[in-house]
Amino acid sequence: MIPVEEAQSLVLARIHRLEPETVSVLDALGCVLAADIISDIDVAPFDNSAMDGYAVRANDTEGASDGSPVVLRVLEHIAAGMVPQRELGPGEVSRIMTGAPVPAGADAVVMVESTEGIENAGGTGGTVAIKAPAALGDHIRRAGEEMLAGDVALRCGEIVGAAGIGLLAALGRPTVEVYRRPRVAIVSTGDELVDITERPGPGKIRNANSYALSAQVLLAGGVPHVLGVARDNVADTKAILSRAPEFDLMVSTGGVSMGDFDVVKDVLAEIGDVDFWKVAMRPGAPQTYGTIGPTPFFGLPGNPTSTMVGFELFVRPSIRKMRGFTALARPRVMARLATDVRKKSDRRYFLRGVLEPAAAPRAEARYDVRLAGSQSSAMLTAMHRANCLVSLPEHESAVAAGSIVECIRLDQEEGTV
Amino acid sequence: MIPVEEAQSLVLARIHRLEPETVSVLDALGCVLAADIISDIDVAPFDNSAMDGYAVRANDTEGASDGSPVVLRVLEHIAAGMVPQRELGPGEVSRIMTGAPVPAGADAVVMVESTEGIENAGGTGGTVAIKAPAALGDHIRRAGEEMLAGDVALRCGEIVGAAGIGLLAALGRPTVEVYRRPRVAIVSTGDELVDITERPGPGKIRNANSYALSAQVLLAGGVPHVLGVARDNVADTKAILSRAPEFDLMVSTGGVSMGDFDVVKDVLAEIGDVDFWKVAMRPGAPQTYGTIGPTPFFGLPGNPTSTMVGFELFVRPSIRKMRGFTALARPRVMARLATDVRKKSDRRYFLRGVLEPAAAPRAEARYDVRLAGSQSSAMLTAMHRANCLVSLPEHESAVAAGSIVECIRLDQEEGTV
Repeated sequence: MIPVEEAQSLVLARIHRLEPETVSVLDALGCVLAADIISDIDVAPFDNSAMDGYAVRANDTEGASDGSPVVLRVLEHIAAGMVPQRELGPGEVSRIMTGAPVPAGADAVVMVESTEGIENAGGTGGTVAIKAPAALGDHIRRAGEEMLAGDVALRCGEIVGAAGIGLLAALGRPTVEVYRRPRVAIVSTGDELVDITERPGPGKIRNANSYALSAQVLLAGGVPHVLGVARDNVADTKAILSRAPEFDLMVSTGGVSMGDFDVVKDVLAEIGDVDFWKVAMRPGAPQTYGTIGPTPFFGLPGNPTSTMVGFELFVRPSIRKMRGFTALARPRVMARLATDVRKKSDRRYFLRGVLEPAAAPRAEARYDVRLAGSQSSAMLTAMHRANCLVSLPEHESAVAAGSIVECIRLDQEEGTV
Repeated sequence: MIPVEEAQSLVLARIHRLEPETVSVLDALGCVLAADIISDIDVAPFDNSAMDGYAVRANDTEGASDGSPVVLRVLEHIAAGMVPQRELGPGEVSRIMTGAPVPAGADAVVMVESTEGIENAGGTGGTVAIKAPAALGDHIRRAGEEMLAGDVALRCGEIVGAAGIGLLAALGRPTVEVYRRPRVAIVSTGDELVDITERPGPGKIRNANSYALSAQVLLAGGVPHVLGVARDNVADTKAILSRAPEFDLMVSTGGVSMGDFDVVKDVLAEIGDVDFWKVAMRPGAPQTYGTIGPTPFFGLPGNPTSTMVGFELFVRPSIRKMRGFTALARPRVMARLATDVRKKSDRRYFLRGVLEPAAAPRAEARYDVRLAGSQSSAMLTAMHRANCLVSLPEHESAVAAGSIVECIRLDQEEGTV
């Protein structure tokens, strides 16, 4: 048995970022950029109006007020998407819409709310009353004020969110290079497993783990490939595990404890390398890790909650590292434990808990945490209700109600502050 | 202009949960259950072993220790998936694997680590030395201890996470009823827009908003349908907006301010109903809301950040409500503002900010917040870098550095405590 942190470090030291791939811009959502994005244009591309109103020469509007407006002549009407045809001379303005290019000669925009059309103010040759003075540059967005052509707009390593998608589109990138999502093979093991569409006969249970694992892979940003069930014999297990090199990562459930039919570890030793096979934790001490050819292999235990906790601690950070993320650990918070817990002193415990804001503010822990239900590793209900894993340290055989404990937030992404 | 909260309340009062649909279990991930899930089986389905070891009669192991083990006769070997063939009599045990059914006559399991095989202990007719006493029920998972056939396993209204997927699979549900994801029509407006694959000519910009909006729709759990660009004329705008009833919700960008060519509001009034068209906020006061036939219509402003903030405040909660979520507001935290901000006193401001944990702990705000860059609504870079919207109240014309301000977290899901 090795400690949890040692196992995590060992795994992550062997996991490498995957190569970049080119995807459609919208498919980059949630991915990490694999190259700097250089702007091909100035943004804004030209001086343009931030308001609907009139492009003016600021000098012409001096002293304008509600009581004594300045009346100016309208040269033309410039809508967004148009190109101004006329240069302003003294006493001249042009009607201008938001986003439209500012005409030559203009040095400010007066918003429409501060004007009053007098005669044909929307068109050519009319007049408009300006009722407030404009300062130089008012309501003009300058060409290149956000970035210049050649500037780095987004950097390699940045995560693409919705605004990043908008920026990439604005910079004319229908496709973009991001670090590839790993293809994750999922293998279930056990003679007791039947398909979820079947009613289990005596001694049988439904193969639910491959579904929970697929969901966890999706949430981590990997691409799940369910390979099916290996029965509890060497030939079957070897046949499926040998497919590992077709994938970026392989995860199995079951077949890794002390049982006579737990053949995963033996097969792994035969066709690959075993780095560790037992971690000082509960649930799920039999956590096997190794490689089959170039492919990292995670032999998770078969109890549903042990499988999911093992995935959370070892596989999820690996998938994220493959995808180019640098934040690999979920946020942790301190919380006041609601109940006494007895434990084995040789293992870290990860109890399924529900965090709630503390009723009364207290300095050492803003949260209370209670257990989410029965902590049997065979039961998934508590995992379903949990929003955290309560991490109870080794070297303790009991943790009393009221203790301040560390909780791993399952409801927040890695890197959340 | 109506206040932000009034606009939000008005919108949400008109938005209704969509009808349920049946999806493959894995597609239910992140969705809200539309029906109670009743267990069709006992879970566990039968008394089974929680460990690899020996099924025993606890009485037979009394007084067993390392120094004076009790030697018992092995009847058979029960693997997971098998059905026990023999009932234990006095002095008899059966080898048993994790998850295998406990044989008749046994009332405890001794784990393999507390035993030593003597002769053919893995098979029939051998003997085993038991080196620790078992208590009644040790390491036995009882049939039905998690739930009984007929129990409600998951309730209508619960959100399906990875563990929920595992539970649904364990209960034999290859498909499940969830509230449907809305089909969201996305319309851009403006003569200035060119496709993102084009290099914009004079006065033109790329149509980036439909990409940012598509990403926001995906992140909210909707299904985006990009309908294209309506040019700035009534015929074009009417043709596209008339398609609203084909969708559950329609979002447009641009065409809603004071400009002569902003025809969205006029067309909406003609073919539908306008509930409001201006909200006391910045960025993006021209936020139009109404209905076209049965379909809610959001006319967001055209500046990229105004579009995204409008989506966040009005459209995202609507999509969530349609999907059956009850938590519709992002988490909010208090933070110490790093810089002075001047503002118009008639509007709520939503500045793009970066939250960081406060260097020194303080009771009133655990976070510091700084502006994420230029706050021009035409620029997306600050939105890309932001993890929050800093909400500055109406009725203030300035907020001083050091003030404690409310921030809407963009990096946490609604309902996060």
